[in-house]
Amino acid sequence: MLHNAKDSELRARAAKVVPGGMWGHQNAANMPEGYPQFFASAQGCRIRDVDGNEYIDFMCSWGPVLLGHHHPEVEAAAARQAALGDCQNGPGEAMVELAELLVDTIPHADWVQFQKNGTDATTMAVTFARAGTGRRKVLVAKGAYHGAVPWTSPSLSGVTAEDRAHIDHYVFNDVASLDAAVDRNRDDLAAILVSAFRHDVGFDQEMPTPDFARRARELCDATGAALIIDDVRAGFRLHLGGSWEGLGVRPDMAAWSKSIANGHPLAAITGNDRFRAPVTKTFSTGSFWTAAVPMAAAVATVTALKRDDGIGHMQAMGQRFRDGMAALAARHGTPIRQTGPVQMPLVLFDADADLAKANRFCSTALRAGAYFHPKHNMFLSTAHGPADIDAALAAADAGFAAVARM
Amino acid sequence: MLHNAKDSELRARAAKVVPGGMWGHQNAANMPEGYPQFFASAQGCRIRDVDGNEYIDFMCSWGPVLLGHHHPEVEAAAARQAALGDCQNGPGEAMVELAELLVDTIPHADWVQFQKNGTDATTMAVTFARAGTGRRKVLVAKGAYHGAVPWTSPSLSGVTAEDRAHIDHYVFNDVASLDAAVDRNRDDLAAILVSAFRHDVGFDQEMPTPDFARRARELCDATGAALIIDDVRAGFRLHLGGSWEGLGVRPDMAAWSKSIANGHPLAAITGNDRFRAPVTKTFSTGSFWTAAVPMAAAVATVTALKRDDGIGHMQAMGQRFRDGMAALAARHGTPIRQTGPVQMPLVLFDADADLAKANRFCSTALRAGAYFHPKHNMFLSTAHGPADIDAALAAADAGFAAVARM
Repeated sequence: MLHNAKDSELRARAAKVVPGGMWGHQNAANMPEGYPQFFASAQGCRIRDVDGNEYIDFMCSWGPVLLGHHHPEVEAAAARQAALGDCQNGPGEAMVELAELLVDTIPHADWVQFQKNGTDATTMAVTFARAGTGRRKVLVAKGAYHGAVPWTSPSLSGVTAEDRAHIDHYVFNDVASLDAAVDRNRDDLAAILVSAFRHDVGFDQEMPTPDFARRARELCDATGAALIIDDVRAGFRLHLGGSWEGLGVRPDMAAWSKSIANGHPLAAITGNDRFRAPVTKTFSTGSFWTAAVPMAAAVATVTALKRDDGIGHMQAMGQRFRDGMAALAARHGTPIRQTGPVQMPLVLFDADADLAKANRFCSTALRAGAYFHPKHNMFLSTAHGPADIDAALAAADAGFAAVARM
Repeated sequence: MLHNAKDSELRARAAKVVPGGMWGHQNAANMPEGYPQFFASAQGCRIRDVDGNEYIDFMCSWGPVLLGHHHPEVEAAAARQAALGDCQNGPGEAMVELAELLVDTIPHADWVQFQKNGTDATTMAVTFARAGTGRRKVLVAKGAYHGAVPWTSPSLSGVTAEDRAHIDHYVFNDVASLDAAVDRNRDDLAAILVSAFRHDVGFDQEMPTPDFARRARELCDATGAALIIDDVRAGFRLHLGGSWEGLGVRPDMAAWSKSIANGHPLAAITGNDRFRAPVTKTFSTGSFWTAAVPMAAAVATVTALKRDDGIGHMQAMGQRFRDGMAALAARHGTPIRQTGPVQMPLVLFDADADLAKANRFCSTALRAGAYFHPKHNMFLSTAHGPADIDAALAAADAGFAAVARM
């Protein structure tokens, strides 16, 4: 059994001063038995909870940690900038360096604007699309997550009908449904918003089919709507140039956050010249959006990722994990499905509608030292090496054995 | 003349890769002639632009810097936490410590939830009010700023009518207009949203009258609506317990950001027990919202502010500045109006509709080493001492002389 006395004490204190004790995607009440709520420290791909239990991390802070915790070059760049200034009366030189680096790295990008949350980026990209087209309707895949504000939150609590008056839906990878949604909104279509791939929690992941991606681009070209890729979750894990670059399909705008500064808080919208003027005329801002430390960290993050072929490394480690998991599942006679990009693993058990198997698997693996997720895609970082993957597979072995005994 | 070669070079580069070269409230295109766009470093209340020009800062990064840049206790706390972990799979112990400290410090607060932007806090507070009341209408003062997203942005570019379908308006400090707005929406009233005081850009500031504040509370009590104070701009500069605490009027929720972590990115909603359940049932989240470094910084910020009576110090320095400015204006025969709380100075010239006097004043004072704002409220920090105020007044003297020559 893991030690959890400190975690329990903090949960009891939090329950008094935070509604529900915790909120949002990091609420451990939504995790399998035994998962800690509070974390003490992290290094590379190893994380430690407040009771001193250490785990090989497969969530990477739900995405932001791309190069591992405390990456020396990123933290050196952040510390150099912090010694000078962070949140000032305007941006620092780092903003220009970062914007130039992103425009240089991302083929569709003629410009960049920065924010703080992924939700800032998706919300402002939709607003810019409306500003640029003079139209209102935005098509979103059914079940896709694009943030936690009324126009797109998975929760309807506090949401009014008008918040979603101009949102219509298609089914990801279903060309006919996309065509139909465009037909329903053709005269007033501002944007088609797409996730980098289908990564809805609890469902098998789906990469976009080439037909679907091309059709989305064609429909935007035909109607004048903006094609917006929400690359908040997948950005810089699939392709340096944006997640659809490998398909040869370029968006008009893309929303970025999570990974771009290796855990330092930052978001960005990249876009092409068609939307430069609408962005210029639309007021958007935030108190911390031009802070220099996250931008200096982002320059170091993207530079290291490019130089070291970090994406190739994550793919190799992801394949090692997927192959190992498949072999373990077969050996234990516990069929699983592994879908989507290997560097963003999702493991779902067959015949597991109530997630009883997934939860048992995860709780057991946690006690054996691996922090997996039972239904949300996971994340690898460039700090995961072969020995880490193999150690995680050893923990998974215990998890599969527990499932086999159910 | 100030050196500005580096600033000019960075602006030219930024113009290529950022729409308009810059956006939002920090866009130097909106500032008087000579103001730099890019900043290199900061210490206490002194800031330095990328060309090495140093200024006594009266904007405090537009509010966040409450104790001066690089406050030793805040930065030590941030560094200790950063060495352990920042953005992790869940919050650290610092979240509980900070929530307890805020509940202990702010009388209306039974609970706290954290976000990243001030706009996150105002948007979610409105959503929580709707969730808790089951109603839709939100009353906002005409001209008040509560964020830069479609339901409340000062810009209408990209905004649809439905984004504001349930927003109605009153006039700040006008009890009759508030009564009328409540009457128009009585059956569906979710919230009255009020700024801590009237701080609309370009207008004389107004503290809330006791009658107005009490009436807002009475109307919420009578209708069941939530009274929400937007304390993003004024929080922790007027009163430790929230900006209306001195009036004896407590909100149901308050939105905080800017100053609470002395420049580290953080926002918060504080609220009473009536809204605990609605907050618990409403999904809200952000990738960086539970990062531990800003929370550790906030604990140190609030602790130092309380212990050192930082607000009293800012009031004394603000009064010294206001008295000095009044004397200078009288001596130069250039009448000005100074309104609102002294620690958040606003200086407007009489007969200056086009801001020609204010701009001349600011550009001249800038060259003399003081960074003022011509029409937005300014901010003092606890790092401003008498010598800094006096040096700024010497720069202001040059500014007034320039206005007198117009």
